Amino acid sequence: MIKTVIIGQGMAASYLEVGLERLKRNEIPDYGVPLRNWIPVKYDEIEIVGSYDVDERKIGKTAYELAREFFDSSVIPGKLKEIQVRRGIHMGSLKGLPYKAKGLEEKLGFDKAVETLIEEWKSLGAEVFVNVITTEPAEPIGSFDELMARVREGYLSASQAYAYAVARYAKEVKPSVFINAIPSPIANDAAFIQLYEASNAIVFGDDAATGATPLTADLLEHLYQRNRRVLGIAQFNIGGNTDFLALTEPERNIMKKKTKSSMVSDILGYEAPNYIRPTGYLEPLGDKKFVAMIIEYSSFGDFKDEIYVIMRVNDKPAIVGVLIDMIRLAKIALEKKKYGTVYEVNAFYTKKPGPPGAKAISKVKAFYRLLDWLGLKDPRD
Amino acid sequence: MIKTVIIGQGMAASYLEVGLERLKRNEIPDYGVPLRNWIPVKYDEIEIVGSYDVDERKIGKTAYELAREFFDSSVIPGKLKEIQVRRGIHMGSLKGLPYKAKGLEEKLGFDKAVETLIEEWKSLGAEVFVNVITTEPAEPIGSFDELMARVREGYLSASQAYAYAVARYAKEVKPSVFINAIPSPIANDAAFIQLYEASNAIVFGDDAATGATPLTADLLEHLYQRNRRVLGIAQFNIGGNTDFLALTEPERNIMKKKTKSSMVSDILGYEAPNYIRPTGYLEPLGDKKFVAMIIEYSSFGDFKDEIYVIMRVNDKPAIVGVLIDMIRLAKIALEKKKYGTVYEVNAFYTKKPGPPGAKAISKVKAFYRLLDWLGLKDPRD
Amino acid sequence: MIKTVIIGQGMAASYLEVGLERLKRNEIPDYGVPLRNWIPVKYDEIEIVGSYDVDERKIGKTAYELAREFFDSSVIPGKLKEIQVRRGIHMGSLKGLPYKAKGLEEKLGFDKAVETLIEEWKSLGAEVFVNVITTEPAEPIGSFDELMARVREGYLSASQAYAYAVARYAKEVKPSVFINAIPSPIANDAAFIQLYEASNAIVFGDDAATGATPLTADLLEHLYQRNRRVLGIAQFNIGGNTDFLALTEPERNIMKKKTKSSMVSDILGYEAPNYIRPTGYLEPLGDKKFVAMIIEYSSFGDFKDEIYVIMRVNDKPAIVGVLIDMIRLAKIALEKKKYGTVYEVNAFYTKKPGPPGAKAISKVKAFYRLLDWLGLKDPRD
Amino acid sequence: MIKTVIIGQGMAASYLEVGLERLKRNEIPDYGVPLRNWIPVKYDEIEIVGSYDVDERKIGKTAYELAREFFDSSVIPGKLKEIQVRRGIHMGSLKGLPYKAKGLEEKLGFDKAVETLIEEWKSLGAEVFVNVITTEPAEPIGSFDELMARVREGYLSASQAYAYAVARYAKEVKPSVFINAIPSPIANDAAFIQLYEASNAIVFGDDAATGATPLTADLLEHLYQRNRRVLGIAQFNIGGNTDFLALTEPERNIMKKKTKSSMVSDILGYEAPNYIRPTGYLEPLGDKKFVAMIIEYSSFGDFKDEIYVIMRVNDKPAIVGVLIDMIRLAKIALEKKKYGTVYEVNAFYTKKPGPPGAKAISKVKAFYRLLDWLGLKDPRD
Repeated sequence: MIKTVIIGQGMAASYLEVGLERLKRNEIPDYGVPLRNWIPVKYDEIEIVGSYDVDERKIGKTAYELAREFFDSSVIPGKLKEIQVRRGIHMGSLKGLPYKAKGLEEKLGFDKAVETLIEEWKSLGAEVFVNVITTEPAEPIGSFDELMARVREGYLSASQAYAYAVARYAKEVKPSVFINAIPSPIANDAAFIQLYEASNAIVFGDDAATGATPLTADLLEHLYQRNRRVLGIAQFNIGGNTDFLALTEPERNIMKKKTKSSMVSDILGYEAPNYIRPTGYLEPLGDKKFVAMIIEYSSFGDFKDEIYVIMRVNDKPAIVGVLIDMIRLAKIALEKKKYGTVYEVNAFYTKKPGPPGAKAISKVKAFYRLLDWLGLKDPRD
Repeated sequence: MIKTVIIGQGMAASYLEVGLERLKRNEIPDYGVPLRNWIPVKYDEIEIVGSYDVDERKIGKTAYELAREFFDSSVIPGKLKEIQVRRGIHMGSLKGLPYKAKGLEEKLGFDKAVETLIEEWKSLGAEVFVNVITTEPAEPIGSFDELMARVREGYLSASQAYAYAVARYAKEVKPSVFINAIPSPIANDAAFIQLYEASNAIVFGDDAATGATPLTADLLEHLYQRNRRVLGIAQFNIGGNTDFLALTEPERNIMKKKTKSSMVSDILGYEAPNYIRPTGYLEPLGDKKFVAMIIEYSSFGDFKDEIYVIMRVNDKPAIVGVLIDMIRLAKIALEKKKYGTVYEVNAFYTKKPGPPGAKAISKVKAFYRLLDWLGLKDPRD
Repeated sequence: MIKTVIIGQGMAASYLEVGLERLKRNEIPDYGVPLRNWIPVKYDEIEIVGSYDVDERKIGKTAYELAREFFDSSVIPGKLKEIQVRRGIHMGSLKGLPYKAKGLEEKLGFDKAVETLIEEWKSLGAEVFVNVITTEPAEPIGSFDELMARVREGYLSASQAYAYAVARYAKEVKPSVFINAIPSPIANDAAFIQLYEASNAIVFGDDAATGATPLTADLLEHLYQRNRRVLGIAQFNIGGNTDFLALTEPERNIMKKKTKSSMVSDILGYEAPNYIRPTGYLEPLGDKKFVAMIIEYSSFGDFKDEIYVIMRVNDKPAIVGVLIDMIRLAKIALEKKKYGTVYEVNAFYTKKPGPPGAKAISKVKAFYRLLDWLGLKDPRD
Repeated sequence: MIKTVIIGQGMAASYLEVGLERLKRNEIPDYGVPLRNWIPVKYDEIEIVGSYDVDERKIGKTAYELAREFFDSSVIPGKLKEIQVRRGIHMGSLKGLPYKAKGLEEKLGFDKAVETLIEEWKSLGAEVFVNVITTEPAEPIGSFDELMARVREGYLSASQAYAYAVARYAKEVKPSVFINAIPSPIANDAAFIQLYEASNAIVFGDDAATGATPLTADLLEHLYQRNRRVLGIAQFNIGGNTDFLALTEPERNIMKKKTKSSMVSDILGYEAPNYIRPTGYLEPLGDKKFVAMIIEYSSFGDFKDEIYVIMRVNDKPAIVGVLIDMIRLAKIALEKKKYGTVYEVNAFYTKKPGPPGAKAISKVKAFYRLLDWLGLKDPRD
């Protein structure tokens, strides 16, 4: 079994917990899981053993109870009653959002909080950690020494703190994987790469790629392959879930913009004017997300063409398919002992693939690099 | 020099003739030419030495005069005055369209007409033939014997007749390439593949892929890679050029539908309901083409998502970029002596890549197979 | 009570029967009913007393049983068990469609069939008839004498035959209204207008306006009011219900095109190039309809602008809202004794408002004319 | 002649100056001018006699010279050489934008600056003033006394200062009209309405309606008339002209949001969730603007439908057509002595029609109220 801990018991976590159990019981097809049944790791092997949050309304509740906010009781697997939400750490990362939160670090101090987590994980037998907390402001730390200094001061973002705790756990207890599904730079922070390499730990990240960004990447690849000159790209997003609410704060919004800006020039090979960022929050949309995209380019003879795309997607289901693969790939990466990070995984599944300095490539290319890494052949060939 | 003959002096031919000369003089950038300056064959090496048509209003005129229908005189290179339109063959392929046409075969009989063409091509030193005649109804002939029987009876479509003449010319005079940019099955006809292999001839085809079809292919690949289940695809096209006019006739329209229908299941690996075909003709649009596409799919947990695409493209410039590459690749294929056809070229540049039985693959995949065939590395890597 | 007979027990009929009963019980809001509670005729007053079809699989069944094809049993009102489907007439109108049909006229001859209908309607106490049969090929008859001649020969389309029977019933039994929700020209046929005026009958029609056509009309009005010069309009539709299936036959398709073509010049005041017609059938879409629309226009200084619209609509619910108003307006028109037809009703609710020679106007204008006719004030003013 | 003064010699001014002269010479059609030749005031009667700005690079230059930034010399009428840009006032309204500006008030103090303007206008014989300065932060002043206090302190926005100067001029010299084409609340400020009524002055405003807002209004009217329940609206805009640059500043952006927010509930009669505001700036788009709009609504039976709209428009040409009408209507309003403001004009031509407390109505309704006010009949009727 792949003993998995969820960090951040929000909507994505509930969708993952419900979806995974239903998938294991064959109640739903495995649509949206890119690697489907091609790899030797089965869905059944994934077991969610714990979940962490800092919202007082959630701590102590079961995943079953919390799933009822999003799902009809009739479809929530009883198994979720076994997952109880534990108190995590927040390091001030929810500042400005409408939650009443209290972290372990506020009770115990940072050092003791980390030790508590490690003890709990040990008793849970955890080896894979999925970070789906709310988008937080964060910058790469850069050097290992600076990271150690920050640890001593307890001056880290929530994701950095969890990532550090996982490294400690990996070194002290057993090799582990931290899947960073949010924009905080962990796989893109040289400090964490060094720490992970030294700790028998692996980080996948950053920022799970689910919606418009991968499609934009592949449209850019399409234009690149035809040598069409992109004159400008605009991409708007609007949604009604907590992610979009969080992104109405400029500090958090800037995190998303960062993970997307280098993609355009990485894929096209030149700087094309672009405006790509989460745009608006409209509460009644709920988990439904709308994307509008506009691309102008020059064709042969400098004629101007345009492509317009509108997407209407369910946001969380998209991320669940990706996470189910990443958890299974965590097992494979551990077996291969690829400590540090795995670009081949990051390139396909994330918006800002680490390690730092790595280039964004189109998803369509990344897919084949991933198959190569796995020793798989495209089954259509 | 790559001595090139144009078959069908319509709008695409004029755009190619003007665009190529302007490109050679650096008056326009090479946007829209997929292989740009990556291959050792330079734009300068292409020389258009002749052009054929059956429209009485065009025969005897120069490419310069005919380009004035589409371009301002100030941008038409004087060089086009050297290309005079010659009488070709039509074999009844313009039936139903508003043209007054007379083919060589009506004057001389089929055999004599073919011989006349071969003689002319010999004096022109031709080695590459670009077929851009109006879409015609045509079926694969299938067997070599049947093809020979049809030749004896003079019972061929115009494209088949030209393709046969080129094979004869290749065998009798010098190895040559027939680039079939229209839907008539030539590269997809086992009869022609056998004939070409036996004649030191190469056919690229069928149906140059320029607009919505390659984008659809790549969107399908994008969905396939995420294991999203396509529930339905609809794609509408409307334009105002002769191609769309021709396609208002059901017999010709069916030709386009055929080249697209197998693509969906080839890429997705299952039959997804689809409605993909040229839809309407609206004369004032001229060469501007509008495409509307709708894709519905199931995401993880069987949630339904939708993607809508609208494109506004200049039709002929798109095909010119493709033809400039195909002509240059003709030279490379001749050097490599790849007689018959070259799937690697067809897969990226055409809608219905031959040889018969070959699968459609997404363009994004085809691009890397083409680079491999050429021994090129993606310059971004 | 407004005793109402449904002609054509298809999907629209089921949606109307279910929707109306649920509306009467306050199980659903009255969204989509344009006149909502503004008029003195309440939803409760509508009673569906009978239903006619010619499909052998439907005759004898109840509306309740047939609704189960489209609705979950839990939402189908038991009241529908009281509506039994009776055998109607078809006059060959289903030719080419995959139904096994037998009309009264085949058993009894045309005259006797009409008399049978009148007898049945009398016993039902009917006074409003809603024609929602499948789109059929039909032309206006034009003169009263010709209509009488056709009646003698029994040479009428199904809609014409029903419309004639209703006129006879209105004259012999009681004043009645024929709501022609399909494209067959009845309100646009001078022969029927004359017949209805002479028979104390009223026809509303033709072709209930529900989806893209009213929106197109209002977009054209918007452009007209700004004096923007429309250069071209294209509108594509695709759906999966029987309507779209029927329209894949060119003969039926042409019926739809006709109801739409004059609208453009009527509203704009000049001929603008347009391509507006039902386009494709994609079975898995079911009742979901997709519309794509493209409008190009010249703005001040002859700059070219473009508007693109995509709609994703549920087809049948849209028509039900319209029919509920038209049935209620039938009562008002009967009280006002407006025999013949009522342009004010037709202009807002139909695609091709009768009487013959009447102009299409934008729906937004028609709405205020309707309010005027009803003596209502816009409640926002 | 209608002697007209332009305030703010930016892109809109240049397009107006060039377009108007070309229109007077019949070099361009009058597309985009809503009232076209229906009113007795001809295009010839408009004469631009002066122009004001505070940008040091513009002051002293002619409109001809400045038009060359946007137009090819061959199309700029020589007449524009007669319009010299004079120094205006700015009151700090360009704070944060990359311009080097100096206003008359900095040299002379506010009182003296206003007197200087009045003197100049007198010598020019001005009677219509078109305010097209860059969007500035501004709030309604509310009471006449407060306005007078602000005048004494010289504490006004640039638009308020000009509006005040025009009122003084109207009272002291001759009745005049101030056309406020930008979002600053002038026609929506009770203080200015009172001042104008007392000064023989008229204000039209606020915020000329050109692009997506009128279309949104008319789409909402369309849905309202069908009683479709709007669940949410999102509208995104992106452009590359100075307006969009200015709106990247939150303070200015909020001005646009304000003019649009009340529209939704005014037209629909209830609060529908909405996100409507200028969104992004992408310099290479220049004057081209892209709009993406998404509307979700409930149809009959509570089925959910969606409408998506994409527009690609030239921004400035749209405003010019509107301004040409407003200037002509200024003459009519002066003849009618409608001092204060004219709701019938504002309702059709502006985004936030004054006077304060007036409701937004759909443009399609406003059009007929305008025709009524003018005593015109819709020529199609």
